[in-house]
Amino acid sequence: MSDPLLGWFQSHQDQYISGEEISRELSISRTAVWKQINRLRKKGYQFEAVPKLGYRLIGKPTKLDESSIREHLKTSSFGQQMKLLERVDSTQNVALSWALEGAEEGAVVIAEEQGEGRGRRGRAWHSPAGKGIWMSLVLKPRIPLHFTPHLTLLTAVAICRAIKRIVSLPVGIKWPNDLLVDDRKVCGILLESQAEDERLLSVIAGVGISVNLEADDFPEELRQVVTSLRRESGQEVDRAALLAEVLFEWEQLYRLYEEQGFGPIRSLWEAQSITIGRALNVDTPFGQVSGVAQGLDESGALILLDADGCYKKVFSGDVQFST
Amino acid sequence: MSDPLLGWFQSHQDQYISGEEISRELSISRTAVWKQINRLRKKGYQFEAVPKLGYRLIGKPTKLDESSIREHLKTSSFGQQMKLLERVDSTQNVALSWALEGAEEGAVVIAEEQGEGRGRRGRAWHSPAGKGIWMSLVLKPRIPLHFTPHLTLLTAVAICRAIKRIVSLPVGIKWPNDLLVDDRKVCGILLESQAEDERLLSVIAGVGISVNLEADDFPEELRQVVTSLRRESGQEVDRAALLAEVLFEWEQLYRLYEEQGFGPIRSLWEAQSITIGRALNVDTPFGQVSGVAQGLDESGALILLDADGCYKKVFSGDVQFST
Repeated sequence: MSDPLLGWFQSHQDQYISGEEISRELSISRTAVWKQINRLRKKGYQFEAVPKLGYRLIGKPTKLDESSIREHLKTSSFGQQMKLLERVDSTQNVALSWALEGAEEGAVVIAEEQGEGRGRRGRAWHSPAGKGIWMSLVLKPRIPLHFTPHLTLLTAVAICRAIKRIVSLPVGIKWPNDLLVDDRKVCGILLESQAEDERLLSVIAGVGISVNLEADDFPEELRQVVTSLRRESGQEVDRAALLAEVLFEWEQLYRLYEEQGFGPIRSLWEAQSITIGRALNVDTPFGQVSGVAQGLDESGALILLDADGCYKKVFSGDVQFST
Repeated sequence: MSDPLLGWFQSHQDQYISGEEISRELSISRTAVWKQINRLRKKGYQFEAVPKLGYRLIGKPTKLDESSIREHLKTSSFGQQMKLLERVDSTQNVALSWALEGAEEGAVVIAEEQGEGRGRRGRAWHSPAGKGIWMSLVLKPRIPLHFTPHLTLLTAVAICRAIKRIVSLPVGIKWPNDLLVDDRKVCGILLESQAEDERLLSVIAGVGISVNLEADDFPEELRQVVTSLRRESGQEVDRAALLAEVLFEWEQLYRLYEEQGFGPIRSLWEAQSITIGRALNVDTPFGQVSGVAQGLDESGALILLDADGCYKKVFSGDVQFST
């Protein structure tokens, strides 16, 4: 929290704080106090003002707001170009168009709501208004096409780390890039790549984090397999702070990857994984493969040890835990 | 040539062939001869008819025509869905839109002329009307993303083989997929891929063959580095026959790859290569690499042996021969 006044109100929920106290504590004039309160009101914070008692924080912004995100943002490029939109079909589509029109690496598209948010294999991604982080980042990596899976894994690690920093929850990665809490999904990642021969032109990295959704925000058929940070932690999560943390961790790992390659990312992924050591069935384009997950190879493929004692590599597929 | 009458005329250029001779040779009635000549006229062949002497072939179709292509076509899927267009910006764009709208694997877009034909790295590809094969094929391969370079190499082999069948010319492949005659380019290939995580969604494979271009059809600055099949062979080439042969060889190799993987393709590529054994400079995204080309690795990367006796792998780049 970079805003001391807001931090004070948030740590004194349901209490009145007088203008005089604020003035004294922050060494600012009474007029400045009034201006600060108004600044927070403009961001969507609601205060009750009672003569003699002072101000009480009674409502927080429900909308993501660019200045709040920028206050938290510690990156040098990720998120520095930003489109914050109300409702879109899919942030992936907006970001791809923007990339084709020349958006720089690190440009990010965020929407309060997606009408046609998508996951892998054309599956729908449920993206209701005001409760999630639905975003797409433009990457223009100078790596060969066949290293793309590294970015998929790197993204999962970054978001896992960011969530853990903001909310204390046992989030883990299911190969390649689903984030689960207690075997229920809280985040989906989808990388869409455009290449010319062996040269990657752009990667649009889509991330959907179910932040403040309540049980009844999810369609009934999904409630057993998905959850949200709020449901798991019991508390509302500051989306702007989480978003800024995601962009920060992501940029850090991306720079690490540029400098040192996949080695460190692989170790970090394995450390956050809930896949390794478990018996899995994987539906691949070539049929089902089963075995106990051992780790990643240098390309990012998952190594399985099957019942016959043979090692198998899986490059893409849907993982189901069988134990 | 599947048309005996046309073959006869083509092998007797500038001679008159009488209706009676044709009737006797092909064992058809005089009325049938007249019908056959009219059929060829509809395709764009021009005949002079002189009483007592007979018919003389004086002009060939300058346009590609769907029925001529289909007459030559021996494929089961490649080219069975076909869009033959007069003038487009780029066949790549038309084919990508078509693929997104549901065109099946093997669908092909052919244009007489491209306004903005493109090669690698946004370079222009010169595509004047009526003299080349400017085409894009839709592929939806069930292979992991990192196998895409196999398709680039496979395409070069297929087109090289097709050209050799139709025109007897020493065509060879410069890594990864330029086709040269006497170190001048006659064909360029550009694969544009769309992927979702590690799963290829579609590949739009663009091919430009400079078939019947004359020297002055090329911009002056290109004349030293490009050539055409006509310039090299001294004869006009039947574009419909060549196009059908390209699609046939391409489909054959694609099926072979589906069944047996990259091994046989790699051998065929190496057999058609003019790269192996030569000293090269390669401009890669990571700087210039030099050495003598040794062959391909299993991913399709080019293996170089440098002056220090070290082996190096190149995944993408522009090759210049240094000897």
